[in-house]
Amino acid sequence: MSNYPEKVYLNGEIFDYQNAKISVFDRGFLFGDGIYEVMVQVNGSFFYELEHLKRLSDCLQKISINFEINTLSKKIIELLKVSDLILKDCFLYIQITRGIAPRKHNFPNKIEPTLMMYALPFTLPKINENHISVITIQDQRWHRCDIKTTSLLGNVMANDDAINQNVYEAIFIRDGKVTEASHCNIFFVKDAIVYTHPADEFILDGITRQLVIKLCNDLGIEIKEIAVKVDQLSNMDESFLTGTTTQVASVRKIDDHYFYQNKETGPITKKIQKAFLDLKNKKVKIL
Amino acid sequence: MSNYPEKVYLNGEIFDYQNAKISVFDRGFLFGDGIYEVMVQVNGSFFYELEHLKRLSDCLQKISINFEINTLSKKIIELLKVSDLILKDCFLYIQITRGIAPRKHNFPNKIEPTLMMYALPFTLPKINENHISVITIQDQRWHRCDIKTTSLLGNVMANDDAINQNVYEAIFIRDGKVTEASHCNIFFVKDAIVYTHPADEFILDGITRQLVIKLCNDLGIEIKEIAVKVDQLSNMDESFLTGTTTQVASVRKIDDHYFYQNKETGPITKKIQKAFLDLKNKKVKIL
Repeated sequence: MSNYPEKVYLNGEIFDYQNAKISVFDRGFLFGDGIYEVMVQVNGSFFYELEHLKRLSDCLQKISINFEINTLSKKIIELLKVSDLILKDCFLYIQITRGIAPRKHNFPNKIEPTLMMYALPFTLPKINENHISVITIQDQRWHRCDIKTTSLLGNVMANDDAINQNVYEAIFIRDGKVTEASHCNIFFVKDAIVYTHPADEFILDGITRQLVIKLCNDLGIEIKEIAVKVDQLSNMDESFLTGTTTQVASVRKIDDHYFYQNKETGPITKKIQKAFLDLKNKKVKIL
Repeated sequence: MSNYPEKVYLNGEIFDYQNAKISVFDRGFLFGDGIYEVMVQVNGSFFYELEHLKRLSDCLQKISINFEINTLSKKIIELLKVSDLILKDCFLYIQITRGIAPRKHNFPNKIEPTLMMYALPFTLPKINENHISVITIQDQRWHRCDIKTTSLLGNVMANDDAINQNVYEAIFIRDGKVTEASHCNIFFVKDAIVYTHPADEFILDGITRQLVIKLCNDLGIEIKEIAVKVDQLSNMDESFLTGTTTQVASVRKIDDHYFYQNKETGPITKKIQKAFLDLKNKKVKIL
């Protein structure tokens, strides 16, 4: 998805992407003062739409942006219509900022939030068959990573490091523990037990992350929300990333440590990928 | 300064503020992927302009935005002309973002940075006579506060807390130590020795901060770049904030602790304020 959409929804109007412009006094531009969300439409509906919209609503509340989330679904349909993407597989980006005001740090009293959305044709692969390499990087981000904010420079710098090193992702190490990746969550498997960082203020609690935890419980796979220490990484049996577009992606290599020499996928990862695929096919909501 | 400027400079063009608009695909809007700077014109020239522009250049370099800083002075003059602020006391805001590209985390290869600037009539008081109250707040920001980025949500949330509690600023506590305030640096005085946090990755090295250190040296006041611990706050004799528009402002109260019952200013703070005022009047560059 390194292309522009045809249409952009902006505060109740639809624009050709070239003409979708906001005020330079939008606090999204001046302060990174906004929240975003990404959803994928599969088989005619957005995968776990309610959960995504609930997280969007929660994040807006955490930073005191007043936005009527119930109005959103109608507007999304409006965007999909003009984008010729109704019922079609696509990627949807939603950004809500605090709105437009003369620049000063504190929140203005009366301010209308800015809503910007666009959709792009996009089909998820059935199972993510990439055999991913990642690097570790010190987690220099703020301490409220549970907020899906557009103040993303820390994530952006880490991700750029990863791409420059020809790997898929950078995974963050904070105080000697693995937190998450720049736009994914990360899981490990050791002795048939799955580990991932607890959903506290140091990670974003991904919808796919929540789903994988639920799937593990359903499959009778033991799962512990305990952070893995960086010095335990090479002792782990398997690792995988999760995310809305990443789905469940097997990690082949972290820094210089190989989990697999060839294009294998560990047995637990494979089981979870299979269960995740079944879920997409059945379109059953289990959360 | 809670009003809009009349004119905005944006990528080589001048706009009325209502028409100053950028693409929603500007990475400043999508990722907070930009750097900003603030300068004040006093007695016909920008106070420590070279130092501000050098910091801007350094910060751009830290996040790999390629921008030809030497072209800026000419553009500033162009903006001042149309703003009718040539040689007049004013406030100048400069923001440079990575530029416009389809949204993905890593930096695009070829991209033209966005330059946005505006100026407002603004006259600094001779000496900041406010007797300021501040609150302490946990420092939840990222670990690269040396970068003057527009990914400012952490600062914005802290400042909003302060304003809601009717105080001037929030001062950050990280690991039990005072770092800085949401848009100022902070100094303390104990037994005639001045203390401030060292200029590492946990604070922005303010131009006024640098100036005050130099002034202390000139005045024979001992200055130590050592962070003050939060549990030492009430033992301090004096405290003051520094910043481009804050100048040197005496702190009367931190949380429930009063440094002064009345509108006094401590002797060291007063000495530094006086030296700072002399400097402005002489327009002598000492850095």
